[in-house]
Amino acid sequence: MAYNRVTPEIAAQLAAIAPGRVKTGEEISPDYCRDEMPIYGTGLPELSIDVLSTEEVSAVMRICHQNNIPVTTRGAGTGLVGGCVPIQGGIVLCTARMDKIISFDEEQFGVVTQPGVLLETLKAEALKRGLMYPPDPGQKLATIGGNVSTNAGGMRAIKYGTTKDYVRGMTVVLADGEVLRLGANVAKTSMGYNLTQLLTGSEGTLGIITELVLKLIKAPKLEISLMAAFADLETALQAVPKVFMSSFRPTALEFFERDILILSEEYVGKVVWPREVDGQPVQAYLLMIFDGDDLDEIDPILEKMTEFMLEAGAMDVFIADTATKINDIWTARSAFLDCIMDSYKLYDENDVVVPINRISEFVSFFTTEAGQYDFEVRYLGHAGDGNLHIFGVSNEMDEETFKEQIHHWMTSMYCMALQMGGELTGEHGIGHGKIPYFAEYVGEGVMQIHKAIKLAFDPKLILNPGKVC
Amino acid sequence: MAYNRVTPEIAAQLAAIAPGRVKTGEEISPDYCRDEMPIYGTGLPELSIDVLSTEEVSAVMRICHQNNIPVTTRGAGTGLVGGCVPIQGGIVLCTARMDKIISFDEEQFGVVTQPGVLLETLKAEALKRGLMYPPDPGQKLATIGGNVSTNAGGMRAIKYGTTKDYVRGMTVVLADGEVLRLGANVAKTSMGYNLTQLLTGSEGTLGIITELVLKLIKAPKLEISLMAAFADLETALQAVPKVFMSSFRPTALEFFERDILILSEEYVGKVVWPREVDGQPVQAYLLMIFDGDDLDEIDPILEKMTEFMLEAGAMDVFIADTATKINDIWTARSAFLDCIMDSYKLYDENDVVVPINRISEFVSFFTTEAGQYDFEVRYLGHAGDGNLHIFGVSNEMDEETFKEQIHHWMTSMYCMALQMGGELTGEHGIGHGKIPYFAEYVGEGVMQIHKAIKLAFDPKLILNPGKVC
Repeated sequence: MAYNRVTPEIAAQLAAIAPGRVKTGEEISPDYCRDEMPIYGTGLPELSIDVLSTEEVSAVMRICHQNNIPVTTRGAGTGLVGGCVPIQGGIVLCTARMDKIISFDEEQFGVVTQPGVLLETLKAEALKRGLMYPPDPGQKLATIGGNVSTNAGGMRAIKYGTTKDYVRGMTVVLADGEVLRLGANVAKTSMGYNLTQLLTGSEGTLGIITELVLKLIKAPKLEISLMAAFADLETALQAVPKVFMSSFRPTALEFFERDILILSEEYVGKVVWPREVDGQPVQAYLLMIFDGDDLDEIDPILEKMTEFMLEAGAMDVFIADTATKINDIWTARSAFLDCIMDSYKLYDENDVVVPINRISEFVSFFTTEAGQYDFEVRYLGHAGDGNLHIFGVSNEMDEETFKEQIHHWMTSMYCMALQMGGELTGEHGIGHGKIPYFAEYVGEGVMQIHKAIKLAFDPKLILNPGKVC
Repeated sequence: MAYNRVTPEIAAQLAAIAPGRVKTGEEISPDYCRDEMPIYGTGLPELSIDVLSTEEVSAVMRICHQNNIPVTTRGAGTGLVGGCVPIQGGIVLCTARMDKIISFDEEQFGVVTQPGVLLETLKAEALKRGLMYPPDPGQKLATIGGNVSTNAGGMRAIKYGTTKDYVRGMTVVLADGEVLRLGANVAKTSMGYNLTQLLTGSEGTLGIITELVLKLIKAPKLEISLMAAFADLETALQAVPKVFMSSFRPTALEFFERDILILSEEYVGKVVWPREVDGQPVQAYLLMIFDGDDLDEIDPILEKMTEFMLEAGAMDVFIADTATKINDIWTARSAFLDCIMDSYKLYDENDVVVPINRISEFVSFFTTEAGQYDFEVRYLGHAGDGNLHIFGVSNEMDEETFKEQIHHWMTSMYCMALQMGGELTGEHGIGHGKIPYFAEYVGEGVMQIHKAIKLAFDPKLILNPGKVC
């Protein structure tokens, strides 16, 4: 695809749409050239524009469409697969300043919001009204528009589902500037093709989301964490499918191993988790949340779960029932990503999904595979839904060798995950970092349909070019 | 679009694919010409074929694609919007005999099934394993493939969501015979465009579903129904949003009025529901289900709900806690559709969705509107999600006048539903019966994208032509 350059005339037209919010050349923020995964590189846009409204986005797109200029949309840029990197230059359109929550509907459990609202803001504002926006990706400083664009998942998917389950409608600007309003704040629809769901997770390649109608739920009044310590990972993971088969409905169910915990606790400078039980070293942990409306409801569940975990081979079970304890217990888990990023010069990651009864087998597989390479492996995962975060990290290797080795390792992992009946990515998306794998494993037929849909929405291929397909 | 006729040569090719399962001319079952809503007419296919496998469907589509022959896919034909009526002739492809459940995955809460399995069979087989397939459309003799094709909703959507929330993957045959496998039996994915969700609810216009991967949940062990009687509909409906705001989580929450109840009870020949409380006539009812794992869990909820309903103005509250009582209490509700169909020569229906806090206002609107016409009105609804089933019925009118008056009435209802922030259809789909309204109310931009997506999947427009868009 041959794109045109942003001429001074076009820049002037865009500047007239968003006065004072258009930057060119060295004025452009370096943040607009990258996301949070350095390994997938940067891209230099010719122009950046901070938009404030659907009308502005529509006007911008009319100009870019007419002039065949690529547009990469971004929110807070917290992605991990290079999704918002402007690899084809053109313009970066940032929706982060469209950060208003437009209205809550407390009787209908809905919220209408601009895409630039931060996840943590949306959650906090909902909570003030006794409501909850359940999806819970780790990165709370992401924008809600970014979350929708990648169908972000997070820890609470096992009870509450992922972002897509909370998107009821949206306003979207198409490549040619046309504005579509899709869906409504109601629980049911069979009204033609589900465009809302198609746009969700499409990573800015089909349209630009400028407004969202999201479903909320009544916020549970209480949340209690429970942590089980195990002598080995396999025993811990074997308990996981049985949790659900025994009718427990945890809000979150995470796992991690001893060395990851120690790494994270050293990073945050606070030791909270027990590393030994009766003189025996703890090798693996399961960490759970249970929520509900009162202690009478949750207490019997915690009691049953404690018993269940001990029967399943846990060395001990610890309950965190105060805000301080809960905060302490989750700090190490939450610090994991920052810890990796601060501790290593080189890192790459995948977030494959495998069936929950095969996590242990998969962990053995990729750790054994990694044995033949020079990088180290760090990982943890959403045990309850089989979605893992697996990092290859290094401070010693040169970047070329690192990338080459990582590529082989990732290839073997993707291959095995699909063979096990899993998926390549649970919540991070394809971006441009994962395209080679996606194209290879998803098959020619699915890629062709992706391309045909892309052309149906964006015949000039100007929206986030080089991403997804 | 100019389609070709099914020549004897083509018929012979198809017969070779499905020996003994191809019919032509008068051999074709009259059932294959219609669905369950006579008002949307019938269509005469040139040939019908009962397929047994993905490979057969693929082979059929290769021939039809090559020869430009329209294909209308059907399951049990229980739709209500003419979705499976072969209005362009061509061939009817029936998947009803693809009726095997392939495998249950009890650790991963999933089932792989062919599309022709009946909803009641799927539910029963799941239950034998302690599992539940939660979507609960009224028509249990529909096929699961049909349910997915229309994103069928049903009564339990308020707690458990609709069909789309349980579709994790599918095998789909495209218009040219290409076979795609989409999704996996895992809880999370951000793997490119959500084709699974796009196909769900696409009414056979984008591809033919030949296998499904569905999510199940642990079946609750107990189910108890609660019915509240009111002196007027408005008071009953005013309680509905407050139910959810007060943290109750009913599995179902239905409403109906006195005259509908009497009609249904007369039809089934059994009077169960109280028609008076303390000598005062009951005018409206709310009917709820609560589920859970033991009485200790449900009893306090029922107690609180009884109190809540009385405070909200209910005349009395009745609890049905045995299988017989529950069956009795639901018989009249379940018989509603059959009762209409058996009692009237002419009927048409819509299933609009309105915000749950505006149902009462909407009921006033359409009953008042109907006052200017000659047909009668019958309705009830899923109070918990705002999805109503509104029938115009007549035994006296001539069909032309009936259709004309109904069209005006439907138009006013759709207009008002959208104005209130609702949707045209909650669970029945567009088919060909609702196309005029869909095209008018959804807007030119959304229709254009529908057409572009349709062309991306089916450039010769041979799949279920004349439906949706």
